[in-house]
This record gives sequence, C-alpha cells and structure tokens, in this order.
Amino acid sequence: MIKRRSSRRLQIGRLFIGGLEPIAVQSMCNTDTRNIEQTVKQINCLEKAGCEIIRVAVPDLKAAKCLGVIKRSINLPLVADIHFSHELALEAINQGVDKIRINPGNIGSETKVKQVAEAARAKNIPIRVGINSGSLEKSILAKHNHQATAAAMVESALKHIQLLEKFDFDQIVVSLKASDLHRTAEAYSLLAEQVDYPFHIGVTEAGPGLKGTVWSTLGIGFLLQQGLGDTVRVSLTDDPIAEVKTAWEILKALDLRKRGVTITSCPTCGRTEIDLISLVKQAEEALADVDKDIHVAIMGCLVNGPGEAREADLAVIGGRGQGLILRRGQIVKRVQESDLIKVLVDEVKRYQ
Amino acid sequence: MIKRRSSRRLQIGRLFIGGLEPIAVQSMCNTDTRNIEQTVKQINCLEKAGCEIIRVAVPDLKAAKCLGVIKRSINLPLVADIHFSHELALEAINQGVDKIRINPGNIGSETKVKQVAEAARAKNIPIRVGINSGSLEKSILAKHNHQATAAAMVESALKHIQLLEKFDFDQIVVSLKASDLHRTAEAYSLLAEQVDYPFHIGVTEAGPGLKGTVWSTLGIGFLLQQGLGDTVRVSLTDDPIAEVKTAWEILKALDLRKRGVTITSCPTCGRTEIDLISLVKQAEEALADVDKDIHVAIMGCLVNGPGEAREADLAVIGGRGQGLILRRGQIVKRVQESDLIKVLVDEVKRYQ
Repeated sequence: MIKRRSSRRLQIGRLFIGGLEPIAVQSMCNTDTRNIEQTVKQINCLEKAGCEIIRVAVPDLKAAKCLGVIKRSINLPLVADIHFSHELALEAINQGVDKIRINPGNIGSETKVKQVAEAARAKNIPIRVGINSGSLEKSILAKHNHQATAAAMVESALKHIQLLEKFDFDQIVVSLKASDLHRTAEAYSLLAEQVDYPFHIGVTEAGPGLKGTVWSTLGIGFLLQQGLGDTVRVSLTDDPIAEVKTAWEILKALDLRKRGVTITSCPTCGRTEIDLISLVKQAEEALADVDKDIHVAIMGCLVNGPGEAREADLAVIGGRGQGLILRRGQIVKRVQESDLIKVLVDEVKRYQ
Repeated sequence: MIKRRSSRRLQIGRLFIGGLEPIAVQSMCNTDTRNIEQTVKQINCLEKAGCEIIRVAVPDLKAAKCLGVIKRSINLPLVADIHFSHELALEAINQGVDKIRINPGNIGSETKVKQVAEAARAKNIPIRVGINSGSLEKSILAKHNHQATAAAMVESALKHIQLLEKFDFDQIVVSLKASDLHRTAEAYSLLAEQVDYPFHIGVTEAGPGLKGTVWSTLGIGFLLQQGLGDTVRVSLTDDPIAEVKTAWEILKALDLRKRGVTITSCPTCGRTEIDLISLVKQAEEALADVDKDIHVAIMGCLVNGPGEAREADLAVIGGRGQGLILRRGQIVKRVQESDLIKVLVDEVKRYQ
C-alpha cells in the first residue's frame, strides 16, 4: 500500500539499493575499528541479526589501514565513515571498501574533492553525503538565522552534492538526520523534490532504550509511509544488534520486508486464565531463528481469540491451564499449558 | 504542527477527553478484578508511571461488585470493560465507575440497551464502543466477503453507535482496533468522516516486547500524525507499566504532550572514547522521576556534540575519561567521567 519514491539504483558491494530494491537494513559498529578482531566479530553478529550493510568509523590512518583486512573477513558490504579528511577517504577506497560516507564540502579544496570522486568512480563505489542537524556549516547556519532548520539541512546537502556532480560523480546516497521528528520528515520531503539519489534514513541521536526506539520508529516510519527511504539506520545508544532488530520490526510492520515469524498476542487482562506473558516470551525465543514468513497468534481468551486465529496461519487460544492449537482458523489439537509452546513450535516447523 | 481533529469533549471522572483536551494516556489492569488489593496496587503503580485513565475487566458479577471499593481506593478515572452482559454494565454503573466499555449491539435486545443508556446518562458517564477486528459480528463479516476489513469495522461501529443514539445517548467514545497498521489507519480515517465522537486509539494484540512496541508506536503514531486520537492505549503482552511508558514516549516525540526530561544521545561509534551507553543508562535512571520539561543531550564526541549541545538545555560532551557540561550551549564545567552523571543531575535540578 506504500508507493515508494522512484530513486536511482546504486550498487554497494554485492547489494543494490534504490529503485525497486528492497529497503536495506544497516548499522554501525561501536568497536574501535583498529581492533580488527572485535570489529569483525561484531559485524558477524550483526549479519546474523539481519544487518545488510555495515559502517565503521575511520578516525585516523591506522583505522583506515585496517579496512582491507576487515572487508576480507566479512560478508557484508563495508562502509567507511569519514570526517574532514580526503587522505582517509582515499585510503579507505584503496583498501577496498564498498561505500564511503564523507561530506565533500568539509575536506578543504575542490582538488581534494576531485581526487576522492575520481577514486570512488574508478572503483564504482558510492559516496554518502550525510547531513546532521548538529554539524551544519556556520555559513549556512548564518543564512538561516542560526537555526539548523530543514531548509538549512537541505541547502547543505545540495552544496555537497553539487561539489560531487561538478566532477561528474553521481553515485550518491543522501541522509538528512535531525534529532527531532518534524524536522527530519520536512528535510527529506524537501530534498525529494530536488534529487533522485537514494535516501539513507534515520533519526540521529535518538537516545537510549524505549525513548530511542519510539523516536526512531516514528521518524523512520513517517518517512517510509511517504515512500521515502532506500536504506534504514536506526540509531540507538545501545548494542547495535538492537538497531538491526528495530529496523526489521519497522519494515515488517509496514509490509515493506518479510523476515521470520510474526507474533500477534493479546495484552492480557483480568479475563486471562493462563500465564500468557511467559508463554509468549517462550514462543518469541523459540521462534526467533525460524526462517519462515508466517503469522502466529497467541491469545489469552475466547473474546478476540477466534477472530485473530482466523487471520493467522497458526494460533494458540489459552484457557484454564490448557490451550487450543489452530491451523488456518481450524482447531487441530487441545494441549496442556506446559506443552503448548513445544507443540506450537512443532506446528510452525511443519507448516507449509 | 499536528492539527487535531475537532471532536466532542466528554467527561470521564475528573478528566476530560476530546475537544482541545490533552490526549490522555490509559492502560488496563491485568490483575483479576476480584482481587481488589492487587488491582488497587497495580492501578496506583500505573498512576505513578503516568497512567491517566484505568480500565479493568469485568467478567462476572463478583468482579462488578468489587468496582465500588476499587474506585474509592484510587485516584484515576475507572473504566469497566464488559462483554455481552447488560446486567454487568448496570452493576458497574451502579458501583460508580467513570466510563464503561460495551458494544450495545451484543447485549441482546433494545430494551437492555435502553436500560444501560439511561443508567449511564443518569450518572453522566460515557460509553465506549470498542470495535476489534478479531470479534466482528458474523452478519457484518458476511456482507464483507468474510473479511474483517476497515469498512466492516466502521459498519459495526456505526451500528452500535446508532443503537445508543436511538436512546438519545451521545456521550460516546469509539475505538477501531485491528492487529495490522494499514487497516487500523484506514478504519479510523473512514469513521472520522462520519462522527465527531472522541477516539480511543491503539493497535490491538500488538504482541510482545520490541515487536509490540514498534507496531503500537507506528499504528498510534500514524493516527496522531493525522490528528486522530483523544486517548491512547498501547497494548503490549507485557507489564502494563510498559504500555504507559510507551504511550508517553509517543506523545512526547510528536510534541503532543510534555513530561519530564528528554534525553538525546548518540549511538556511539568507533570514535567514542567514553563509556557512553552506561553513562546514558545511569542518567536515564537518575532523571526518570525529575518533573521538569527539559532537554538533555549526552554526546560521545566532538563531531555532532557541539551542535546537539546548542539545541539542548543541558548537555554532556564526553572525551577521554572526562566530559564537558554545557548549559544552553555554553561550557560551564569540565568533569571527570566518574562524576559526570552526578554533576549533570545537579545541573538538571538547578536548571530554571
């Protein structure tokens, strides 16, 4: 039901983004990039959790020199995150990364921009212009009453983009991240009217735990709902695994991607006569790695249970110390509470 | 920036919803209503977490008879959740609840509906018609190709509403909950064109943990963004405290309500030279009960730190084993990592 913006299709390693390609899930390592072993280990864990593109910070030449080894030790497309330095960008490209993130207006001179653009074109790797409301140029802020407005963010993005275009470089991805939702939505909408480059979307500095999850979900959700976004980064002050899981839940909720089992379950109330919260947690863990796009409903009573069961592939309706197992709305078994999850997992594995 | 739908204003106990009233946060007990002590205890905990309206299930007459004592032991407006039985509705009203949730088309006869409507009007309490995609009437499903579509949900809601209106009852709240987001959004939008009754919004059976949080956040967020919703219930297969916290984060993120300190913090990366995840968690806990609407940024490096600090009331920018404390973008102190949170909390308490 979501009509996606028509964006340019680009290659990042073995993956494509933009055009009609699936919206890719990405994250960023929080290890020290110079610690190759830890970084590779984190990337492999993130891949298992569903990460499709991984970015690492490149704060110095020592970190840049590690990129080749990291790249050869992982399966995911590798993105180098660089600030201010064309030397680091050239070294990252030389090391074989699949994409770099750098804002060309901040690296000193057009000669340097030209060198980076030519090196990236020679290897056919894209560059992401990453605008962040917290680090806009002073000259642009001055024109916008010293406020990092959506219009100021877009002006900054266009300035960096035009520098790359000047050197015939058009393999560009753009992000426009602010730490509040209205500004994020406005910035991407404004830029969508002006360029067809794919969008990397996210809410920056969304913060910790529930706050970060809710703000990221809303910010990213509103953009996706409008058809904007070709790759998603959820930013949380947390283990990046949580970022990947959250991104997938957003994409699944909006019917934009499919991945694994989806559990529908009731919130429990004074009518519930079974330990539903615990049963659902057990089911969630047991089904986490099942690679089947199916819908399981786990319900605590007969008020809404049968209706949800009808709409699910498999369902459990709990009663007093026991439960019914349903397949496509038809009762197939009556099972004791203690066996419910085991039987449900068996049914999921057998389901075709 | 959100323009709210113009809805009718109603009273629920000491609270008002609809019209220009703040969007109220509500939840539902998962205790056995017949266990008065546990139920009251849970309601008091929920109030402390920010719950503004509380609902309890009323599965039988014994539960209904407990409502008066519960009501007199709590501060929040109390809602009785009733299915199928006009006797339970009458007893709940008699016990002094502030609102009932019942679908009048399901209680048997127009005489019974009339009795309930008259009893509710005599006490000036509203009735919520609560449509759930999982429990639509067979007659309506039959007209919609046996699918619980948004149109079928709206038709069901209008049928129940018209039964109440027939007996001159217009203190009505409506909900239209489905377990998927597109249908939820479509149902509320359709009904908004036809009635001006306030909307209770939520995604039903959203499920456990992260999945429930993301789905509820998106479903509720899309409605609020369109200006729909006068009271919010997040449904999670979890402790109802989590429902209340999630609802508040949604409302805060959309600038619809204010409550306590808002933390902006970066996701950490290979540039971070301070244990930011742990510092932010400590700050989150220490500031959870501070009743001041202020914005705190906690940043791990100098790339985006200064920009975010400028936009925050108070900020920490972390470096190697120490950090700067900023007030309205101006550095006020340099502090060792071990003292950062203590000093930040002091600054928050002093901030005016």
